[in-house]
Amino acid sequence: MTTEKSLIDSALRGWKSNIEQADKLFGGLSPEQLEQEVAPGKNRLIYLWGHLAAVNDRLLPLLAIGERLHPEFDGMFISNPDKSVQLTVSGQTLKAAWQEINQKLWEGMAKFSAGDWAQRHTAVSEQDFEREPHRNRFAVLLGRSAHVAYHVGQAALAERKI
Amino acid sequence: MTTEKSLIDSALRGWKSNIEQADKLFGGLSPEQLEQEVAPGKNRLIYLWGHLAAVNDRLLPLLAIGERLHPEFDGMFISNPDKSVQLTVSGQTLKAAWQEINQKLWEGMAKFSAGDWAQRHTAVSEQDFEREPHRNRFAVLLGRSAHVAYHVGQAALAERKI
Repeated sequence: MTTEKSLIDSALRGWKSNIEQADKLFGGLSPEQLEQEVAPGKNRLIYLWGHLAAVNDRLLPLLAIGERLHPEFDGMFISNPDKSVQLTVSGQTLKAAWQEINQKLWEGMAKFSAGDWAQRHTAVSEQDFEREPHRNRFAVLLGRSAHVAYHVGQAALAERKI
Repeated sequence: MTTEKSLIDSALRGWKSNIEQADKLFGGLSPEQLEQEVAPGKNRLIYLWGHLAAVNDRLLPLLAIGERLHPEFDGMFISNPDKSVQLTVSGQTLKAAWQEINQKLWEGMAKFSAGDWAQRHTAVSEQDFEREPHRNRFAVLLGRSAHVAYHVGQAALAERKI
């Protein structure tokens, strides 16, 4: 394996490991458990899960893998705080969407060469990218990996009361 | 910049950004604030900070950068849960140690070439590494970046009551 490939392999394994941790934490919860807050007055588990799904969904166009699958998640899980908007998605629907999003992302990511990863992401212009070559797809992958870990850490605090 | 260098640059920026988030969260807290739990009955902020410092300190030998600076942190912050052992470190001492550890790590990391990052870390044998080349230093960097993000997410939940 070349050095480039080895570096990318490590990053993809890291991504997968964070997603699997989220799967484990959220995937087996009942509708009642998903309603629990991670700490008193803080976000509910269903909100964190939906938030991760929505942010990952946005990666599809950002990495130029494809169109978004669930743009309707943004209103519920990104642009508004928890409990301010009625959720129109159940735990079961969210689980299916989460898997669908991560599956499509994974298939797209697996096709990228090292050169592809070093290319600009779609939210940076060609001109800006010339000055700031670190705004590439690989940085997005690492940033979003950390984003998953950040909220998984919070979700792990929720008491399993029910 | 070569593709290899660009990938590593992204990972180092990601590391730094996570460390800086931790700096911001913990660095300005009073001794009383550091005693607060991130959620009722959960770890105190000082424990999470010490835990991150201890785990990062372990990176020094793991990445073959150098000897550990604070092996005495393990008993307080890794091998025992919070509140089970008397802490013999103050917030101020911890802050100095945290900065010292991250500074030494950063200087070591900055010297690694792409080939260095793809080398095995010191906890994997040469034989095992031949079969499992993904157990390299780069994977350790990404894994520990996620580890920082995981606990920073938790620390961000603590109410600033005092």
